[in-house]
Amino acid sequence: MHRYRSHSCGELRSSDVGTDVRLSGWLHNRRDLGGILFIDLRDHYGITQLVARPGTAAQSALDKLTKETVVRIDGKVVSRGAENINPELPTGEVEIEVAEVEVLGGAEQIPFTINAEDGVNEEKRLEYRFLDLRRERMHRNIMLRGQVISSIRRRMTDLGFNELATPILSATSPEGARDFLVPSRLHAGKFYALPQAPQQFKQLLMIAGFDRYFQIAPCFRDEDARADRSPGEFYQLDMEMSFVEQEDVFEVIEKVMTDLFEEFGGGRHVTSPFPRIPFREAMLKYGSDKPDLRAKLELVDISDVFEGSEFKAFAGKHVRALAVPSVQDQPRKFFDGLGDYAVEQGAKGLAWVRVGEDGGLTGPIAKFLTEENVKVLTERLGLQAGHAVFFGAGEFDEVSKIMGAVRVEAAKRAGQFEENVFRFCWIVDFPMFEKNEDTGEIEFSHNPFSMPQGGLEALNSKDPLDILAWQYDIVCNGVELSSGAIRNHEPDIMYRAFEIAGYDKDAVETEFGGMLKAFKFGAPPHGGIAPGVDRIVMLLADEPNIRETIAFPLNGNAQDLMMGAPSEVDETRLRELHLSVRKPQPK
Amino acid sequence: MHRYRSHSCGELRSSDVGTDVRLSGWLHNRRDLGGILFIDLRDHYGITQLVARPGTAAQSALDKLTKETVVRIDGKVVSRGAENINPELPTGEVEIEVAEVEVLGGAEQIPFTINAEDGVNEEKRLEYRFLDLRRERMHRNIMLRGQVISSIRRRMTDLGFNELATPILSATSPEGARDFLVPSRLHAGKFYALPQAPQQFKQLLMIAGFDRYFQIAPCFRDEDARADRSPGEFYQLDMEMSFVEQEDVFEVIEKVMTDLFEEFGGGRHVTSPFPRIPFREAMLKYGSDKPDLRAKLELVDISDVFEGSEFKAFAGKHVRALAVPSVQDQPRKFFDGLGDYAVEQGAKGLAWVRVGEDGGLTGPIAKFLTEENVKVLTERLGLQAGHAVFFGAGEFDEVSKIMGAVRVEAAKRAGQFEENVFRFCWIVDFPMFEKNEDTGEIEFSHNPFSMPQGGLEALNSKDPLDILAWQYDIVCNGVELSSGAIRNHEPDIMYRAFEIAGYDKDAVETEFGGMLKAFKFGAPPHGGIAPGVDRIVMLLADEPNIRETIAFPLNGNAQDLMMGAPSEVDETRLRELHLSVRKPQPK
Repeated sequence: MHRYRSHSCGELRSSDVGTDVRLSGWLHNRRDLGGILFIDLRDHYGITQLVARPGTAAQSALDKLTKETVVRIDGKVVSRGAENINPELPTGEVEIEVAEVEVLGGAEQIPFTINAEDGVNEEKRLEYRFLDLRRERMHRNIMLRGQVISSIRRRMTDLGFNELATPILSATSPEGARDFLVPSRLHAGKFYALPQAPQQFKQLLMIAGFDRYFQIAPCFRDEDARADRSPGEFYQLDMEMSFVEQEDVFEVIEKVMTDLFEEFGGGRHVTSPFPRIPFREAMLKYGSDKPDLRAKLELVDISDVFEGSEFKAFAGKHVRALAVPSVQDQPRKFFDGLGDYAVEQGAKGLAWVRVGEDGGLTGPIAKFLTEENVKVLTERLGLQAGHAVFFGAGEFDEVSKIMGAVRVEAAKRAGQFEENVFRFCWIVDFPMFEKNEDTGEIEFSHNPFSMPQGGLEALNSKDPLDILAWQYDIVCNGVELSSGAIRNHEPDIMYRAFEIAGYDKDAVETEFGGMLKAFKFGAPPHGGIAPGVDRIVMLLADEPNIRETIAFPLNGNAQDLMMGAPSEVDETRLRELHLSVRKPQPK
Repeated sequence: MHRYRSHSCGELRSSDVGTDVRLSGWLHNRRDLGGILFIDLRDHYGITQLVARPGTAAQSALDKLTKETVVRIDGKVVSRGAENINPELPTGEVEIEVAEVEVLGGAEQIPFTINAEDGVNEEKRLEYRFLDLRRERMHRNIMLRGQVISSIRRRMTDLGFNELATPILSATSPEGARDFLVPSRLHAGKFYALPQAPQQFKQLLMIAGFDRYFQIAPCFRDEDARADRSPGEFYQLDMEMSFVEQEDVFEVIEKVMTDLFEEFGGGRHVTSPFPRIPFREAMLKYGSDKPDLRAKLELVDISDVFEGSEFKAFAGKHVRALAVPSVQDQPRKFFDGLGDYAVEQGAKGLAWVRVGEDGGLTGPIAKFLTEENVKVLTERLGLQAGHAVFFGAGEFDEVSKIMGAVRVEAAKRAGQFEENVFRFCWIVDFPMFEKNEDTGEIEFSHNPFSMPQGGLEALNSKDPLDILAWQYDIVCNGVELSSGAIRNHEPDIMYRAFEIAGYDKDAVETEFGGMLKAFKFGAPPHGGIAPGVDRIVMLLADEPNIRETIAFPLNGNAQDLMMGAPSEVDETRLRELHLSVRKPQPK
């Protein structure tokens, strides 16, 4: 028999009754019923109940052990009897009559319970992460993460993508977020940077001809923590393809995401194909470029209706209306509640009307609407008896933000929100340039390295503010998983695009010389995307805090309290790295 | 038709003759035969020959393009005719009559040839790595690397291992090689370290109950470069298992390595099961703890034969003999040549004798051997006519090193060396402690965290120098792929082992407090290993330089000349990290 186990703790069934077995695991829970000891023995694979009768050596050995002690036991599989079956455990039909016990790893008094949630705070959980990870929910989350990544890899490989690693000790990048730096010992005063993303390297792989690349890529940004952003490192499904257009990238990602979310979604359905929503349309209809499409309501732009109106609150402003059906039975506090919600989002208030049985409008602003207004709104919003309409008016961005939030909240409160579904979409047609409101200058609106739609000709002939980019976001249930783009791989188009944004040729060459050089030796058209693995796992695990999906995260203050990182280093080491520490001035 | 291609450049066959196709790729090579242009178009998948006839628009378009230009072409598949078939190309039966050409990416004059090796130096290759990687050998190596890693992942997953990621921004470890450090912005004067290996985290995963873990783990050591060691980062197949003994680890790795090397070995056979060779035996028989078992000769320890001998060169020394069969036809320079080789390895010379037809010995030291000596050697070494025997004598380590090298070299020169085979072995039974020759103190000989064989009882009862550890190396063809161990997971045994090596309890707690704490809350017996991925790929690709197996390696001086790393950072950034650079003193 194996030194430690003949079976795992998740394996034995009633067909094993009568077998002599050996199990190893943790003492998960213990009950003493009149001297008979019932113990749940736990390992990675499950839980098996042990029984030790009074007066046996096994009983006295087990009786004095603390929870979470690691033991090896020998014993015989017996049936629990029909009345004692535990239907919640796969091993619930049997238990083990323990004959022999060996302690493999002792346990001191544990600082929080493993076999139940006990509200212990996160700092303590992270300090004892090796215990926290034994808890059922965390164990499941971390396993899910591993399985999700493994499934992504298999799916990408099946689609002909090659997983290739790019450097982690790399060059500092000229823009984006803050790099983590790594001082060089061999080159005094110089630093490597950890990659914020392998963007340049994946493009170089395309230029090197690898055609279809992916990587579960570790990325590093020295930014402060948020609920959905761990300080320090995160992972993305980094991918890039050559000789493709936007729709080719969509086809791959849509297949991978649909199949992945169906596999791990626990019955939550994925609605594919994913709609392609132009950026401008998304802002108008959903007030956001990351719309939560589970909310079944849409905003309607009615600015034109009030353009020359007497109603000062709307006249000449961006006005967005949200029609909510079947609210005839909603009390007044439904309306007031949404008003309060709008105020929390920064609105001054929330105008509304409701449609009566006779088609007439009532409500706070009904009296400001002309007959013509009512006619147009009824038509545009498809109003019927029982509808309510909420209105927002103001600057474009402000009204979008507020009414976008009201849209989702109203849908939730009015039963117009789908649960148990993953609603993906693509946001497309981002503008290439925008006008800086302060300076009046033309700037890149998002990614300067995306290919402009229409190429060089568009740059030379169109109003820059009308030029769209081959750039896209993938969004699921209101969470942005990634931006991506068809890249600008042609030096001439790049020089011209930067010229429009106010950079001369020299500046471009100084800032982006490395990539430009590579583009000059035969670059294929290429594009890609990099969905965030952490966010995918959060969606699948239904966890709002990213740290619940990572085995050993830094805490919100970027520390590892268990291992003691970051920590001070000695003077010798600093000298070797040609550094000295600048102590902060006492305040 | 797709915007860029209907087929890849590796896809078309004679069954496609007559089809209108679209291909995209790089202009790999060009031949002009009396105005008819033959062009090899290359992509990731292969090469297809294009033909452009004189006077066509396609001919004049293609004629002016430089090598490595990226084009899209439309054309018709035609048969090459029996006499023009290229049997070396899968597409060699067809060519494409080009109708239309579009330049997708222009190419300046390339700095070295892509379609042939031209002896360009490595610095230039690394500076233009995106071109170097287009070359057939490098492209194949990088793809092999990706496929090898993908295969390892699949095999480990199939064996029930869970791939889990451990942190990259982590704590500095108390020993081992030099860490790379990452200054913290939030915590002035403190640093993260990049992991030299995820050793502690993988043990914590075992303590957290994950049972079977693996990871293709990025590791970082700030060490100088060697042929088989890239400065900076490297990857290992990091794995760990709970509730196991040494043989359980061997079983997993032996299966994975055998299947992996059979899959990618290109016909080179793997001899399994892998022999288990105790460390002491390896030193005696092979003069090395990383023996190249392709050399079919073995050393024999004959120190005892000469213990009280008159022959001063051997008397009282460690004497090792190497018998080489069937050298009757070898000229004198075979013996002299091996003597020169031994001198290169640090020997003063290489004593030898040969066995004549009559069984008598001749050669430089024959006259120093007594009749009894000859009798014993003949028996011990199994000497027969045609054998030669080489001798080394001196200190144990020195004679091991020299005769170990002579063993392999003699085998190669005497036709006793197997080619086209992967000979793996396990080196086992490493001593737990050794005596420091300078101080006379007992020290850990290898890994202080391995479990001593016999556990606490052995530590309390045996001479420390006689205690062996559950520690092992895996070696293939003379290359050490990894060390591994069954870990010491019991605090009592750890305190005692460190006590023997001169550390008191306080010192152990100060140095290794984090892990000790974890061991006190129920740790399972566990062990693992971490074979180096880079070395595996080097063996499979038969490349002696590690950089030939990595897409974007740092150069031997730890620089990335293409991206410009490491580089200086500006003062603002340094201040943000609470650092100042200490400029080296001018010499």
